[in-house]
Amino acid sequence: MALIVQKYGGTSVGSPERVKNVARRIARWKARGHQLVVVVSAMAGETNRLLALAREVQGQPNPRELDVMVSTGEQVTIALMSMALMDLGLKARSYTGGQVKILTDGAFTRARIVSIDEERVRADLADGHVVVVAGFQGVDEAGNITTLGRGGSDTTGVALAAALRAEECQIYTDVDGVYTTDPRIVPEARRLKTITFEEMLEMASLGSKVLQIRSVEFAGKYRVKLRVLSSFEEEGEGTLITFEEDENMEQAIISGIAFNRDEAKITILGVPDRPGIAYQILGPIGDASIDVDMIVQNVGHDGMTDFSFTVHRNDYHKALELLKPVVAHIKARDVLSGDKIAKVSVVGVGMRSHAGIASTMFRALAEEGINIQMISTSEIKISVVIDEKYTELAVRVLHKVFGLDQPA
Amino acid sequence: MALIVQKYGGTSVGSPERVKNVARRIARWKARGHQLVVVVSAMAGETNRLLALAREVQGQPNPRELDVMVSTGEQVTIALMSMALMDLGLKARSYTGGQVKILTDGAFTRARIVSIDEERVRADLADGHVVVVAGFQGVDEAGNITTLGRGGSDTTGVALAAALRAEECQIYTDVDGVYTTDPRIVPEARRLKTITFEEMLEMASLGSKVLQIRSVEFAGKYRVKLRVLSSFEEEGEGTLITFEEDENMEQAIISGIAFNRDEAKITILGVPDRPGIAYQILGPIGDASIDVDMIVQNVGHDGMTDFSFTVHRNDYHKALELLKPVVAHIKARDVLSGDKIAKVSVVGVGMRSHAGIASTMFRALAEEGINIQMISTSEIKISVVIDEKYTELAVRVLHKVFGLDQPA
Repeated sequence: MALIVQKYGGTSVGSPERVKNVARRIARWKARGHQLVVVVSAMAGETNRLLALAREVQGQPNPRELDVMVSTGEQVTIALMSMALMDLGLKARSYTGGQVKILTDGAFTRARIVSIDEERVRADLADGHVVVVAGFQGVDEAGNITTLGRGGSDTTGVALAAALRAEECQIYTDVDGVYTTDPRIVPEARRLKTITFEEMLEMASLGSKVLQIRSVEFAGKYRVKLRVLSSFEEEGEGTLITFEEDENMEQAIISGIAFNRDEAKITILGVPDRPGIAYQILGPIGDASIDVDMIVQNVGHDGMTDFSFTVHRNDYHKALELLKPVVAHIKARDVLSGDKIAKVSVVGVGMRSHAGIASTMFRALAEEGINIQMISTSEIKISVVIDEKYTELAVRVLHKVFGLDQPA
Repeated sequence: MALIVQKYGGTSVGSPERVKNVARRIARWKARGHQLVVVVSAMAGETNRLLALAREVQGQPNPRELDVMVSTGEQVTIALMSMALMDLGLKARSYTGGQVKILTDGAFTRARIVSIDEERVRADLADGHVVVVAGFQGVDEAGNITTLGRGGSDTTGVALAAALRAEECQIYTDVDGVYTTDPRIVPEARRLKTITFEEMLEMASLGSKVLQIRSVEFAGKYRVKLRVLSSFEEEGEGTLITFEEDENMEQAIISGIAFNRDEAKITILGVPDRPGIAYQILGPIGDASIDVDMIVQNVGHDGMTDFSFTVHRNDYHKALELLKPVVAHIKARDVLSGDKIAKVSVVGVGMRSHAGIASTMFRALAEEGINIQMISTSEIKISVVIDEKYTELAVRVLHKVFGLDQPA
């Protein structure tokens, strides 16, 4: 008997029939004697429907009111799921983010969880209830409704698992685990039985889209065992996200190839090469709550350097706007930018103990005539920015050159 | 400059375009220097859509979860309305029932307001905001979401007006006031410029459906000036609900003819005529939160009497079920019941000082061959239960015989 947090995404609860299917799955877990906390997203399509409605009324919807509005999506699902569970004879009770209560900061549409008051959940669990919690939402100190941003339901699940010290947080989605890369692009892509948190962080942030990155960070921070599973398959062990490299496992050098077409690049040419300049450039971007992904700055010469970074395409125009006064102030030479780019990355903890990964990667891309625009590396990943049109080709060629299409 | 509470129903906010129209109306009131609190219902059709969704998952949806679900309807509207107001350059802020906070008892789907914490609203008003509040909903002591039952948004409006000591509570709806009867049945029906609270109570509870009865009770209790107006007409004074008969006004004897086809009648024959018997019969009905409307008991003889009452048709079968053990216990002779009935009433404070109203009413019905099944009277109304099929005929004939088709 264990306390398990399960999170079901929008596709898994996309219709009354699917809600009932999920309820039956939950009932089977309950029948095995487990305590269950279930986190649900809005029914597929609902969030977009609400966004469209908002935009019909206000071109740029007010963030506070947008959160009031879109948070209703999950609120409907928690009620439906609780009803479906009761219909199977189980005791169930729903909670909105504000009721649980999931306290966040006040950054509407992209709030961060500060704390969770798990008292009520614990009492209900002890009383035999399945507790159904709305993902994606919380309240700030003043009682305003906030949302965590797209994919935030994963974060809710992990945060609850951490607060409750759950045995495992299971993320049910429409894929059956984490793959070496997107199978829609590389049919030979394989499901990974385990992946380390570090790798998962890189995979998630680089666009593998199975889990929201913040949820993985949370899981790592609070040592929550995280498992990705398919809500459409009856059984299956999915992919377990582990804390450490398992010495007993045959560790592949590279775990996967991630890619991301959601970014735009901005390069500022002729930046004075002096302390504080990076802050001057990125300060206003950060103040506007725009996340910066890659940042590249090469060694300068003649007191000047070039400074590049990438942001989400949704923030591209806003970022350019914010940079104008900065560029004028620091008297930079010019700004180059573009949003027809893709970031492709090879990720693997094995990289630490193996040389030559970068050169293998660059040679493979060169042989296909793919020009590399930016390079950025960490201990366990190498990312390149290339022309968007080469995305699929680059992913396929890298998947093959690192042997990921071979059985592990 | 005054503080005004305005309530807009589901039809008035039934589409983004209509929400914008209402926002423009609010902006005009604001431009005249008034402070405005706006209460909105769910967009027309939304509550029914959610109910249908719930029933797909659970045949008899759990009341607590149903409230979690349907309360999202108003939550969407408050956000949309606030956005529409901001789009016109106004400061606006939305609040759910739980945020304001509107504290209710714990009777899910039919909760009653206990108190309103108006601090936040006052602060926002002082700050120049239009405050937009979700109608129909609140929270109980434990923080569970509750709803006030159909039409509860009117009650929210009046309760807010009372808490804030507003100058007036304006109920915007799809009719332009209170009529002498339903114009769909009697084309000659006239709009009343004023109606007393007592009359309005009788009209509302008897099915005039312009205002929810509880809102009128509230308004009477807290002396809130209530005005019914059309949200589709540009100007118009609607119908003002007054506290007293105005001595200066030419008071008609009868103000209107109300009718109601939502009820069912239950008669228990051969009830022992002894103290406590009415409580024995209606106790279980009340415990099940079923509202009883008419109650008729005539003088008994031979130690026996008959006991009749009416309930909403939705509660008809449940009430019959609840009565079974009671009927067996008190050894009543039989139970007669039926739901093909209508209640038709003449209402007017002038009745107090005029004799002969009842006989005029009964003669008019008799002349049309309409049999009267039950009679019940109060100081200012006479109600009869008749066969449902005679509803329109009875209403027309009474409207004419009391001269309501003549200009006031």
